[in-house]
Parts: sequence; structure tokens; C-alpha cells
Amino acid sequence: MECLIREATSDDCEHLMSLIQEIAAFHHLLDDVTINSQVLKADGFGKDPFYKCIVAELPVENGRKQACPIGYALYFFGYSVNHGRMVYLENLYVVSECRGKGIGKQLLSKVAEIALAAGCVEMKFVTMEWNHPAKEFYNCLGAHDATESEQLHCMELGHATLQRLVQSRKEL
Amino acid sequence: MECLIREATSDDCEHLMSLIQEIAAFHHLLDDVTINSQVLKADGFGKDPFYKCIVAELPVENGRKQACPIGYALYFFGYSVNHGRMVYLENLYVVSECRGKGIGKQLLSKVAEIALAAGCVEMKFVTMEWNHPAKEFYNCLGAHDATESEQLHCMELGHATLQRLVQSRKEL
Repeated sequence: MECLIREATSDDCEHLMSLIQEIAAFHHLLDDVTINSQVLKADGFGKDPFYKCIVAELPVENGRKQACPIGYALYFFGYSVNHGRMVYLENLYVVSECRGKGIGKQLLSKVAEIALAAGCVEMKFVTMEWNHPAKEFYNCLGAHDATESEQLHCMELGHATLQRLVQSRKEL
Repeated sequence: MECLIREATSDDCEHLMSLIQEIAAFHHLLDDVTINSQVLKADGFGKDPFYKCIVAELPVENGRKQACPIGYALYFFGYSVNHGRMVYLENLYVVSECRGKGIGKQLLSKVAEIALAAGCVEMKFVTMEWNHPAKEFYNCLGAHDATESEQLHCMELGHATLQRLVQSRKEL
């Protein structure tokens, strides 16, 4: 499917937020979303942005109102002590009615292009075991599952735990 | 153990690189290290750094030569579409002869402090299933294993795969 891929702007944040809520609902994690479109705007389009984002739009036809993004890829740059510069794909999403038309692959390919241009040597991301369509999509592209091959586990320290950790050092 | 924690400088890169090789050897991944100290310096201390790093040093005693870092924490900022700003801990390491003395916890606590000050709400990282001391360390601090709880898998696209992906879009 022909689509336009462009960098997101702060004007996209309200619509992006509705897509983020859509994907959270799909992952049964709607209650887990604690940000809103204002936060998304401040964090991505301020002085020191915490993420970058590209969006996919369908071409605008005569007489139709301006297109809303039908998908996005949100990513940031990071580092691997073994390999060097890398890109972390936080989220890739295409609305259900536009799936199976190569739009996800176009978004991913654009992130790959930006990452290679920035000197990155790999892309990292996570998938959920039960999300078979996503796994199938990434497997077809040649993705490597480091949890299966090298028993890597994704770990998290939440906000309260970080605060406790800081407090315990101050009490030393 | 009393130690000084400070931001790494480009002068630390040679020593940091030797510690990175030490940890890679421990993970049976020495052949996997493709960067060197020059790359580490360029990527962390240029105009748009790809990572940040703090180091732990023992206090310098009279007559002893200047201390070399005995540990480090290498991290970068990122984003969660559900929760907002986050910090990704790429690597935490303390040399074997200084372990069990709270230095790793002091490094981690300093990263937590920096991350909270930057408005981050969580820290993410990976561990290896077989690395029981690391798992024990993080579990004691209250870390959440998202691979166990939510079946999250760590995925990777390597350099050649990224290049293929870009090429396939250009051929459309």
C-alpha cells in the first residue's frame, strides 16, 4: 500500500496518544498507561527529547480532509558495550484496518535507514511471547530472539524501587 | 566499602574498555566485542553522546599512584510509551576482587538518582538466566522480571539484517 512516511511533529501527539492507547488495549495494558498527550509532547519535542518518532500516512485525496497517521514507530538511540551504537525500537504500530499491506515493514525499514545513517550496528526491541503475528513479522525479517537463544531476561526497577534505592544510599 | 563515584571522562575509556573485555569474558562473549577504546571515546564524549557512564574508584592513599576505576555503570535515557521517561542500564560491573562490598549497589543507586532527577519513572536492563549472582543482586533490590511475568522476549536485528531491510524498501 502506498503511504507517506514522515517525522512526527508535536501536532501529532494527540493522535499518537490515541494510537498508544489502542495498542495498550490490545496488550491488555490499558490501565498501565500513565502518560497523556501533553507529556508525550514535552518528552519528544522539547530541548532534550527522550524519543524520536516517525509516522505513516495515507496519501490525501482531493476533497478528503487531511490524513491522520495510520501507524508509527517510536524509537531512541542507545549503546551496547559489545557492539557500539544501537537503536532501540520501543513501539511499532499500524491500525488494524491497514495491516498486512507492508506499512509496518516500511516504518521499520525507515527506522533502520535512520539508524544506519547514525552509525548504529543493531536494533533492539521486545515482543510478547503470545503475540504470534508480531513474532511472525519479526522472524520473517530475520530477527534474533535473544531470550530463546541466550536466555536473556528483561528486567525492570519501578519508580518506588528507584526512590528506595536512592534513599538507602543517603542513609549510609 | 568507601568509594568515590564520579562521571566518567574520555580519559577513562582505555581502562573502561579493559573492564568491558573482562565482563565479556565472564559472559563467554569475548569474540563478540567489536568496539575499542577509540570508538568508546567517540561515542560517549562527542557532540551527541550515545551513552552516559559513571565510575567507582577507591580513595587514593598517600604515596599510591592514582586510582583506576574498579567498577562502572553505563546507561542511556529512553522512553516507554506506557510510562514515559526511563533509563536503560546497559551494563553494571565491579571487578571481582571488590565484589560483595556494596559498590554495585552504590553505582546503581547513583544511576537511579540521576534518572529520577531527569524525570524517569523506571529503569530497564537485561540479565542472563544463568547469571545467578546478578539475578540475586537485582531481586534483592526489588527488580521485576518481565520475561518471567509477562513473557517478554528480547529481540535483535543485526547490521546485515538492517541493511537488507533498507535495501528491500528501495527496491519497491
